[in-house]
Amino acid sequence: MQNNRYIVIVGCGRLGSHLANQLSRVGHSVVVIDSNEETFNALSPDFSGFRVLGDATQMAVLKEAKLKHADVFFATTHEDNVNLMVAQVARKLFNVAHVLARVFDPRREQIYNQLGIETICPTSVAAEMFLLAVASRRAAGGNTTP
Amino acid sequence: MQNNRYIVIVGCGRLGSHLANQLSRVGHSVVVIDSNEETFNALSPDFSGFRVLGDATQMAVLKEAKLKHADVFFATTHEDNVNLMVAQVARKLFNVAHVLARVFDPRREQIYNQLGIETICPTSVAAEMFLLAVASRRAAGGNTTP
Repeated sequence: MQNNRYIVIVGCGRLGSHLANQLSRVGHSVVVIDSNEETFNALSPDFSGFRVLGDATQMAVLKEAKLKHADVFFATTHEDNVNLMVAQVARKLFNVAHVLARVFDPRREQIYNQLGIETICPTSVAAEMFLLAVASRRAAGGNTTP
Repeated sequence: MQNNRYIVIVGCGRLGSHLANQLSRVGHSVVVIDSNEETFNALSPDFSGFRVLGDATQMAVLKEAKLKHADVFFATTHEDNVNLMVAQVARKLFNVAHVLARVFDPRREQIYNQLGIETICPTSVAAEMFLLAVASRRAAGGNTTP
């Protein structure tokens, strides 16, 4: 594959494992870090990347994942604070060019962005989709309240 | 407001409260149901809808929310099973025309859809956005692995 990227993903939950499987499948080099070994069961049989068992807030664990070689870093744990911390370490200390973090609390997005971390907030995205659904039904001439 | 809708939202967490505030602000009639009174603190001071304190899996609570008059029903709790159950009750027993449920586990989306429930899966949406971010960087000519 041309343009193969070295991608480090923290968190092997639903989102992290899905990304790892997809990105590995299309030919990227993927490393997934999680402190709970069972989460690695969500990786596909054809996942060709590496698993690192450990706490990503520990430098030794990030070094084991060879973070300094990474082109892309994804922070996908279920804790906003962990995601912010590891994303900052990846950006500032390991100079990873492209760092994205999941953030559940929409109010934190702005802070993250000011710190140079791109964020994806599932809550905001879901809210937009729900609102769009109401708007599109209205546009389609749905009935009003009886 | 023209085309005012009667909207019932189950769950007043980040997503539910955000939707309630937005939809109330643009003139819809909104009822929010949650079993935890504290969650109502997330509603804006200008929220003009109703709060119903109770367990939405109980028919009495849904009746109190006047669900049979609803044009739109959103299930936004943090439990996929609860969302599926209340969404089905809204669709089948109260004949609400437009029912949407949040589902965290992407594998359940298909089942929901077969049961006539529209779903929004933040995990899938977030994953698409992460993958898009990698793809767009590649298209923009990002460096490959050293």
